[in-house]
Amino acid sequence: MALSTDPSTRTETARAAVVVDTRHSPFTRLRPLDLSAVQLADTFWEPRRQINRTRTLPSQYQQCADTGRLDNFRRAAGLLHGDFQGRFFNDSDVYKWLEAAAWTLATGPDARLQVLVDETIALIAAAQGTDGYLNTYFTFERVPERWTNLAVMHELYCAGHLIQAAVAHHRATGSRALLDVAIRFTEHIDDVFGAGKRAGAPGHPEIEMALVELARDTGEQRYRRLAHFFVEQRGQQPAVSCGREYCQDHAPFRDQREVVGHAVRALYLYAGATDLYAETGEGTLWDAVTALWQNLQERKVYITGGAGARYEGEAFGDAYELPNRRAYTETCAAIAHVMWAWRMLLVTGEARFADALETALYNGVLSGLSLDGETYFYQNPLADRGGHRRQPWFGTACCPPNIARLLAALPGYIYTTSDEGLWVHLYATGTATATLAGVGAVTLRQRTDYPWDGAITLTVEPPEADLFSLFLRVPGWAEGAGVTVNDEVIGGPVRPGHHVEIRRRWARGDVVRLALPLPVRLLSSHPYVINNHDRVALLRGPLVYCVEAADHPGVDPWDLVLPTEATWRVEREPDLLGGITVLRTDAFTRIDNGWEGRLYRPFDTRSPAPMRVPLTAIPYYAWANRAAGPMLVWLPLSGR
Amino acid sequence: MALSTDPSTRTETARAAVVVDTRHSPFTRLRPLDLSAVQLADTFWEPRRQINRTRTLPSQYQQCADTGRLDNFRRAAGLLHGDFQGRFFNDSDVYKWLEAAAWTLATGPDARLQVLVDETIALIAAAQGTDGYLNTYFTFERVPERWTNLAVMHELYCAGHLIQAAVAHHRATGSRALLDVAIRFTEHIDDVFGAGKRAGAPGHPEIEMALVELARDTGEQRYRRLAHFFVEQRGQQPAVSCGREYCQDHAPFRDQREVVGHAVRALYLYAGATDLYAETGEGTLWDAVTALWQNLQERKVYITGGAGARYEGEAFGDAYELPNRRAYTETCAAIAHVMWAWRMLLVTGEARFADALETALYNGVLSGLSLDGETYFYQNPLADRGGHRRQPWFGTACCPPNIARLLAALPGYIYTTSDEGLWVHLYATGTATATLAGVGAVTLRQRTDYPWDGAITLTVEPPEADLFSLFLRVPGWAEGAGVTVNDEVIGGPVRPGHHVEIRRRWARGDVVRLALPLPVRLLSSHPYVINNHDRVALLRGPLVYCVEAADHPGVDPWDLVLPTEATWRVEREPDLLGGITVLRTDAFTRIDNGWEGRLYRPFDTRSPAPMRVPLTAIPYYAWANRAAGPMLVWLPLSGR
Repeated sequence: MALSTDPSTRTETARAAVVVDTRHSPFTRLRPLDLSAVQLADTFWEPRRQINRTRTLPSQYQQCADTGRLDNFRRAAGLLHGDFQGRFFNDSDVYKWLEAAAWTLATGPDARLQVLVDETIALIAAAQGTDGYLNTYFTFERVPERWTNLAVMHELYCAGHLIQAAVAHHRATGSRALLDVAIRFTEHIDDVFGAGKRAGAPGHPEIEMALVELARDTGEQRYRRLAHFFVEQRGQQPAVSCGREYCQDHAPFRDQREVVGHAVRALYLYAGATDLYAETGEGTLWDAVTALWQNLQERKVYITGGAGARYEGEAFGDAYELPNRRAYTETCAAIAHVMWAWRMLLVTGEARFADALETALYNGVLSGLSLDGETYFYQNPLADRGGHRRQPWFGTACCPPNIARLLAALPGYIYTTSDEGLWVHLYATGTATATLAGVGAVTLRQRTDYPWDGAITLTVEPPEADLFSLFLRVPGWAEGAGVTVNDEVIGGPVRPGHHVEIRRRWARGDVVRLALPLPVRLLSSHPYVINNHDRVALLRGPLVYCVEAADHPGVDPWDLVLPTEATWRVEREPDLLGGITVLRTDAFTRIDNGWEGRLYRPFDTRSPAPMRVPLTAIPYYAWANRAAGPMLVWLPLSGR
Repeated sequence: MALSTDPSTRTETARAAVVVDTRHSPFTRLRPLDLSAVQLADTFWEPRRQINRTRTLPSQYQQCADTGRLDNFRRAAGLLHGDFQGRFFNDSDVYKWLEAAAWTLATGPDARLQVLVDETIALIAAAQGTDGYLNTYFTFERVPERWTNLAVMHELYCAGHLIQAAVAHHRATGSRALLDVAIRFTEHIDDVFGAGKRAGAPGHPEIEMALVELARDTGEQRYRRLAHFFVEQRGQQPAVSCGREYCQDHAPFRDQREVVGHAVRALYLYAGATDLYAETGEGTLWDAVTALWQNLQERKVYITGGAGARYEGEAFGDAYELPNRRAYTETCAAIAHVMWAWRMLLVTGEARFADALETALYNGVLSGLSLDGETYFYQNPLADRGGHRRQPWFGTACCPPNIARLLAALPGYIYTTSDEGLWVHLYATGTATATLAGVGAVTLRQRTDYPWDGAITLTVEPPEADLFSLFLRVPGWAEGAGVTVNDEVIGGPVRPGHHVEIRRRWARGDVVRLALPLPVRLLSSHPYVINNHDRVALLRGPLVYCVEAADHPGVDPWDLVLPTEATWRVEREPDLLGGITVLRTDAFTRIDNGWEGRLYRPFDTRSPAPMRVPLTAIPYYAWANRAAGPMLVWLPLSGR
């Protein structure tokens, strides 16, 4: 399929299972690949995607059934009597599960899953009102309350997840079964809200992204304009949403420059505004999202890519306010960070956005899920005494299906195309086929043991020898990276934090080798992150490491002290925690019994006698999969 | 007045303006002095008490008037129409203001204040129902809601503050005007609650202390038994209060061993349970309060004596969870810490409780009030970027009148008596007259410039030469303290953290000199307080110090680094911040421009080039009284 960025051709286009369809968005540089055009065959993500399909999705469906989330639809459809069960926004979990299931079906058939999807969609359709309205909480006696409390009651949030699920299902399967439901509801919402109609903005953003995607799927620009309306409604006097930073209603969106309030709400809003920019090119929107991005990265993001420092309000803290033990860092916020980063990447093609995406994905997102795929963190702290454990479900269960939908769609985040050629953003063994304008279907075979190893081999297979560019992301941390084509070092610069562009006449079987050095890296944080004073984080490649009790019998990991000039042993442990590479060194533990019964004591310039102990660091994402015990990311240095 | 601890004589006794009347409590060692028997003439507390009388109390009265808190009583009395104004627990602020006013009247006449007090009491009496019920929120249409939501609605909490105010007013003035109101309401509560009557416990403890004091004032033991009932109701299955740690309803009180939940609620409860122990001597109560005290001091208290680490739930954190920047440390919690410590001290006579009381008083409490006496902190963080400023009032205004009542009653916390003699717990210039059994009225004259100077001179004036003990608290930090009597070094040991007992035949004019060394002290915190790694706090005497922007032009205090072997200059600054002693040294500031636009970067074993800069530390209580700017208590050390 030849692609075009000419807006005049943006009408009905070939369906493709793409995550954020910028194929005809005039103000974007990159275009995603169809999920089905990417086959993952790696040992890191693909096993997780299989667990997602075989364990996570079935167990989440069971949870939705057991907790009345599905019965709420039966009740709304008149198939069941009784009270609405659970929280008023519980429909959204079913929608997110559906979205995850849809992306899963895009990359491989699953008859059992297909049945559950079809049944669930039928149930949702049956619950929809004749006027298009659809929310199982606002039914029967609560019909008069519809749209009366946008700041709190999450109707538009739930609608957004319905639309996203419908778009995913349509793109993945071609079926309009859920899409038509979503369109009917969207038409209803568009009748209610807008200039000259009802004012208002969702207390929990989400529908903005969804409406832009629905406009892309249907060609109906009213849906994009409705998203635009909701973004523009923010920050009015008097307020039409919550009026506070909490829901990003403290100022007009275009004037917002600091990431504040509820982190998930914020990041969903910024992602939606980025989607709008992709369509409209409005400079004031871009000024806002780029300033907000900068503020997040320079002041408020955890080294794991997690976001949202505060429990109260599930909110961003002030600049440099990044506590470790009470880090809120909701799994959904890390996922939202990925979603926003993906959109910024699509617009710009700048590697820094892919770097942020990768960091969040491998650390702040993945820690949210147990290795067995059936328990979840809501919060992802960077230090713990052993009490924080993953749970099989939550009353507010936003995180579990959110991580499921991301893993399901993951193949879609690895490659993109642009007018110039083919881009590789993430590294994992597998094959992708991308259609380049004027070139045709190019197959790219990737072989690597990333993130454990930094050697990546790519084989290029164009239909026939042709000129185009291959863009490879060189992560910001990859000092000393090198690239060869057919074993010859390429001429241009290989700059960390940028994509290296290899523009040439590619012939079938050309082999590109990217070598990313993976030393153990010690990172410091800005001095104003006062809780990290004289502490370092260990990283290797994209992975943040931590120390956990299970690897340190007889030693409390919180007592470990790292020599400033440690020598590291990087050791593959195929049988540990699903197969990981651990970092080992000789460290110290405090031999200091003077603290018994004391919280404060006179400072002693003499260091306590250190005892040498072996230290083993594991990837942060893998913690809390063994016996409960203390964990720590930021390790103290033996300064004195 | 000859005192007796024989319970059989515990009937009506001479009125005395004492803070916690243990004069006839069988399970206590110490007995407070009447406030009017103590004249403060020092330059630290007495000027603050004058500001409390002349500025704080009048401005708080005005706030109560302006915010409808007084009108709520007029409305309940049928004198005014309209809606209840403000929060449902706002009556308590008026009661606390009255308590502060009453203690103020105990130590000196104030005609204008007397009028406000009398008018306010008349208003309160007028608002009381014929059945004794009194809460201006639960009036008119809300009458049916009375006692229906003890976990949340604070009726018993407000009642407790009414009773405390009434007891204070009675003790201070001899008037029964408010006491009779309180008794009528207490009788009503006693009719409603108790064994065989209604179950329940207040969501916000407070009434427990109040009821024990009312029993002491009236001799009516039913009131003490009602307090006992409320304590015993906690932790039941099913719950009769909130059922959660939040309000200390997670376990039977006697089984509680860890300080958890809302810090003010917890500390009020522990104080009330200590009051009960003082009367009943129940071992299981004592086991609980001593274990809870230990847990607080060893795991959960700030170095300022502040308590309550978390914003969410205004709660204690886990062990060692003591963040500095987002320390919640409500002023009320530090005050409650003083209240509990005072009760533990009265029971035991152990100096460690007076040490904790003093620490909280000079630091965590006093920081809650501006030097001008008219603005307040709700939270008292130990690090700030300059945004945290005191406010003239709050919607939830518990802290302002709480600090006012403590300052008003302060003379009552300095001395006590026991069977053995006279005790000095706090040091401040002034005179006290204490009646000792078999000795008569002993006058003790104290001269000191404490906390700025550690030299304390006490002149003892018994009616005639007689044998008794003088107990002087030697603070736990006062290593090297010395005591002389008439210039002769005393024979026994002078142990920090204990009272030194000087038992002798005292003659009129005997002079005791206590010398408390006041070096600058650097304190470390337990390694599991991970945010304080390689940081120290500066203290001198009872005062915690901090660095503030106003003293460091051109340098951000958060950039200051302390040499581990600093030489300190201790300098009196009579014109600075109401007269303080500052600590000065040569420190370093980071010359490190490598952080521009970065939150994380590779660890560099080379220290950034340090630039020597003068460092000035001021008492923590005095911060935020000048231009807004960063402040820091825990200073990083130049380890490397």
